[in-house]
Amino acid sequence: MGLLKLTGKFITFEGPDGAGKTTVLNMISEQLRSRLGNGMILTREPGGNRISEKIREVILDRENTEMDARTEALLYAAARRQHLAETILPALNAGKVVFCDRYVDSSVAYQGAGRSIGEEEVANMNLFATNGLTPNLTLYFEVPVEVGLERIKLHRTASRVDRLDLEKQAFHERVHAAYLELAKANQDRIKVIDATRPVEEVAKETMNLLISELNNQ
Amino acid sequence: MGLLKLTGKFITFEGPDGAGKTTVLNMISEQLRSRLGNGMILTREPGGNRISEKIREVILDRENTEMDARTEALLYAAARRQHLAETILPALNAGKVVFCDRYVDSSVAYQGAGRSIGEEEVANMNLFATNGLTPNLTLYFEVPVEVGLERIKLHRTASRVDRLDLEKQAFHERVHAAYLELAKANQDRIKVIDATRPVEEVAKETMNLLISELNNQ
Repeated sequence: MGLLKLTGKFITFEGPDGAGKTTVLNMISEQLRSRLGNGMILTREPGGNRISEKIREVILDRENTEMDARTEALLYAAARRQHLAETILPALNAGKVVFCDRYVDSSVAYQGAGRSIGEEEVANMNLFATNGLTPNLTLYFEVPVEVGLERIKLHRTASRVDRLDLEKQAFHERVHAAYLELAKANQDRIKVIDATRPVEEVAKETMNLLISELNNQ
Repeated sequence: MGLLKLTGKFITFEGPDGAGKTTVLNMISEQLRSRLGNGMILTREPGGNRISEKIREVILDRENTEMDARTEALLYAAARRQHLAETILPALNAGKVVFCDRYVDSSVAYQGAGRSIGEEEVANMNLFATNGLTPNLTLYFEVPVEVGLERIKLHRTASRVDRLDLEKQAFHERVHAAYLELAKANQDRIKVIDATRPVEEVAKETMNLLISELNNQ
């Protein structure tokens, strides 16, 4: 894995559905690009590679309603691994800053807590997928469950509602609680952003936190 | 997982490519069926369920030459989990004897040793997939690497040569050595069958070992 050679920075974005992190990332991507040029990549799982996209298709296929929770967790880990091998590690090895929309914390929250497999078991299994590669910084976009779900309803058309959106309120409550636990247990790595505010404010705070991290060599 | 309720028996068959275990299983399946009737199932990974078959397609797709070894190991574990959840556990819970062609030992040998991930790491990751469900008995079909590879060449047509067959001799040497280590470290569970002998003799010994296990309640 060449972990010792990694000279870049690895920054991830996390949050429950409807926290607005993808919107914010779209808003700030130009500013990041103007600062970092080719010294950065902005990516998201499954990352656009052929293998991970095929894995994602299996996960999200709405006919696969009988999928076991652990099967799903293993498939996310497989797609994550391939994304890491093909995209993230080469960029870090080249000294770039990697901004990634979702990473292991999502699996701990969604599969570990949401699907009740257990957060520690899912975290440990993901160590196999990542060789322990942990982000330098994670920005967690915090919104209460009701706010997130309301935003999803407003913004998504029926055709975009996939299997994950069909889950119940209790699932989202567990995901949210797990994210708060992760943030509390990893205060050095995870910074919490209040994402209930207007999106322009959230984007501004996000940029400030990123600039601070990038200046901190 | 309801492990405490399992009243059936779980028997797996392992061996390097060309050991002839699938041929032997086909030869003895009628005898097993006449003894056990509906009290048994004979299955093999990925097990014919929709999700695992789709995962298998991703693994064996010959265009996926850039697949990372850990991605592959996670995909095998995902297919294994789904097969376990849909086929093996329901049968064991119903008190049936489950005969399964390949299980975790195959991943330890092929991905752990063959692809040099490390046997212990692959075994540990598979604990997530199986909740630790271990076979009551494993029959290991032993043939030297050269014998196995020669048989593959004779029996397979070019169109059936998939990605796994394109690996080099050294890969098969590592797989074979790992199987021997597993057999040595798990003598209570794994029985070694000399599969260099004529297939009728191998089938006869296999039946004798199975009958002995089935009579041993």
